[in-house]
Amino acid sequence: MQSMDDLFYALLQGVYFAEKEQLKLLPMLAQKSANETLKLAFRDHEDETSEQVERLEQVFEIMGKEARAKTSAAMVAIIAEAQYVIDQIDDAAVRDAGLVAAAQAAEHYEIARYATLLGWAEHLGEDEVVDLLSESLEEERHADELLSSIAEGGVNASASERPAAVKV
Amino acid sequence: MQSMDDLFYALLQGVYFAEKEQLKLLPMLAQKSANETLKLAFRDHEDETSEQVERLEQVFEIMGKEARAKTSAAMVAIIAEAQYVIDQIDDAAVRDAGLVAAAQAAEHYEIARYATLLGWAEHLGEDEVVDLLSESLEEERHADELLSSIAEGGVNASASERPAAVKV
Repeated sequence: MQSMDDLFYALLQGVYFAEKEQLKLLPMLAQKSANETLKLAFRDHEDETSEQVERLEQVFEIMGKEARAKTSAAMVAIIAEAQYVIDQIDDAAVRDAGLVAAAQAAEHYEIARYATLLGWAEHLGEDEVVDLLSESLEEERHADELLSSIAEGGVNASASERPAAVKV
Repeated sequence: MQSMDDLFYALLQGVYFAEKEQLKLLPMLAQKSANETLKLAFRDHEDETSEQVERLEQVFEIMGKEARAKTSAAMVAIIAEAQYVIDQIDDAAVRDAGLVAAAQAAEHYEIARYATLLGWAEHLGEDEVVDLLSESLEEERHADELLSSIAEGGVNASASERPAAVKV
């Protein structure tokens, strides 16, 4: 990699991978949520994520590059952690708190990536790309805030009411 | 894991690992930065990170738990990516832009984790822990904003002035 163009393309492929993985993760999170508001938030964000994938495909096209996903090891690890939460926590209320945490780690990874790509697109003079990435960045920030407010609005209270595990 | 206490402890061990890894990463980022403002920001954040590690040790103590680091695969992946940027990009100006991106991915992972732990500590009634985590969360948010302003203040402009790579 020698130019900002190369670097932009490398990160774009990583976030394309991340969004496609999140598209598989979100239905699983929705299915495992006990809290109905949380379940609905995951479903809504799945629809948004589909649009974000399409926006990224538009960005590839505008940049004259092939739309190709490149494995993001960070996203793979974040998803593995979500799976671990689902598998290891039996109590539904505590698990909901864990699902929010896992989803917010994914959101923040994407927020970091979109913010970086957006800054670079401005310097590359790609105005249309800036608009597309701004839209997705705003959605990710909103999704993160919504998860925080759902956690505060009941998920964390329910989870913390559970008694500590009895050590066998 | 059955209770929020268990989940809190699991995530605390993960962020303790992440901060200790970042303590090794930051001197490497500082050393590889060509931009002097960026270099200084990485050095300053190394000092902050040392304090964040100490704060986490205080949290373990308050919670009556052993201070133990648990591998965070997400942080391992984020650091591997930083190493990749250092190794793969020859041009110093383009590399600086890549270093900022890698550091901001690490910051956002920590922002997500501190925000989650802070919300849980409130529900667990751990006021002193809330204060400690709030302080670190604010520092992480500030570090992220500072990196964005350094990128905007020269790093991205220098990087985007480099010509695209000549394909051999």
